[in-house]
Amino acid sequence: MKTIVICSGGLDSVSLAHKVADENDLIGLVSFDYGQRHKKEVEFAARCADRLGVPHDLIDMRHIGQHLSGSALTDDVDVPDGHYAEDSMKITVVPNRNAIMLAIAFGIGAAKGADAVAAAVHGGDHFIYPDCRPEFIDAFEAMQKHALDGYAAIRLYTPFVHIPKSAIVIEGAAHGTPFGDTWSCYKGGEKHCGRCGTCVERQEAFALAEVIDPTEYDDPDFWKTTVEKGQL
Amino acid sequence: MKTIVICSGGLDSVSLAHKVADENDLIGLVSFDYGQRHKKEVEFAARCADRLGVPHDLIDMRHIGQHLSGSALTDDVDVPDGHYAEDSMKITVVPNRNAIMLAIAFGIGAAKGADAVAAAVHGGDHFIYPDCRPEFIDAFEAMQKHALDGYAAIRLYTPFVHIPKSAIVIEGAAHGTPFGDTWSCYKGGEKHCGRCGTCVERQEAFALAEVIDPTEYDDPDFWKTTVEKGQL
Repeated sequence: MKTIVICSGGLDSVSLAHKVADENDLIGLVSFDYGQRHKKEVEFAARCADRLGVPHDLIDMRHIGQHLSGSALTDDVDVPDGHYAEDSMKITVVPNRNAIMLAIAFGIGAAKGADAVAAAVHGGDHFIYPDCRPEFIDAFEAMQKHALDGYAAIRLYTPFVHIPKSAIVIEGAAHGTPFGDTWSCYKGGEKHCGRCGTCVERQEAFALAEVIDPTEYDDPDFWKTTVEKGQL
Repeated sequence: MKTIVICSGGLDSVSLAHKVADENDLIGLVSFDYGQRHKKEVEFAARCADRLGVPHDLIDMRHIGQHLSGSALTDDVDVPDGHYAEDSMKITVVPNRNAIMLAIAFGIGAAKGADAVAAAVHGGDHFIYPDCRPEFIDAFEAMQKHALDGYAAIRLYTPFVHIPKSAIVIEGAAHGTPFGDTWSCYKGGEKHCGRCGTCVERQEAFALAEVIDPTEYDDPDFWKTTVEKGQL
């Protein structure tokens, strides 16, 4: 199954790329630059493509991002500290982002003769992001079946859609993912901050998975405080 | 119903913009620049937005178009003369173009608080383009319902999906569309060429609708020859 992986350079999508390279026929990585603060991630996606010996399509979405305003990931709004919670995370939503990225990836897949597009949407995102829910994934695949009818048959492969991030860590470890070569922090500093929503989620996932976290954090203890406060 | 219209500047989408401005609450036009040869159309979309007094979002897709190669609309391949026929027109397909454009338009719609995105897909395109068929439209709207659940409720309004281009001409005339201020020709010259697939289709639509065609063509008689040859 010739597969293109949408890879941001984060822990989830780099783990997915390694899993697909192991189990299927990985033919390329696609990344999207929304001009967002965690753009630094994209360098880690490029390194992943190098490591796995496949082409890397970097799609510049900065111009389009300007038309989709209102999100902390692209605009000049403070990223909230702490664990994901519905109120604080709603501002990090780029409207319709997953549908846009997936539609472009399917176009690239059709141009390259791919059999599948793989995306690392996962269980932990269901609550906040409607476009990470299984219902969305199924509806998107059905839509693409009609859109490409007669030209291409491409499935949407989302093996992490029903599992939490800790299970992705376990899966990634099983396929030799170099976790130190992935980036999660929304703040895009020199090291992971350890305090933003994704940093807290990342540390918690390694702890729950009982896998050693090789990441260096500016504030390595903040996440435990959050967990102790019962904000999990 | 606050509605955004996807408008290329062609006869169909300019007619749709005038219909929506008459019957609903038109809040903006969105156009996509794929670096294609009929880019000239986009100027007619800008003029339509001016005329109707709404903002015009022009989305630059040239970078993305480079990743979706293989089409006469964006690449250096000759545009075929004559009426649409499956073989000659397949090369004008940009893979997954409608899904990509619609997904971006829904993102803009969500950002602007729209109730609907309107697109001028129509009956005449069903045979060649799978992403113009009613099944695709229904599946796309269902997908978006999941993607934006809890954030926005936007319907996909495609009043031309079941009608031929001649009926669009009749509908456009009923809403005062200045047809001379629309562009169809794929070749993008000074005047409409009169010979390419869209020019032939355009002239035929006016004839069938029994509406006067105000367009100047370089070769105004070619289309009749095509019709006489039974290539309709």
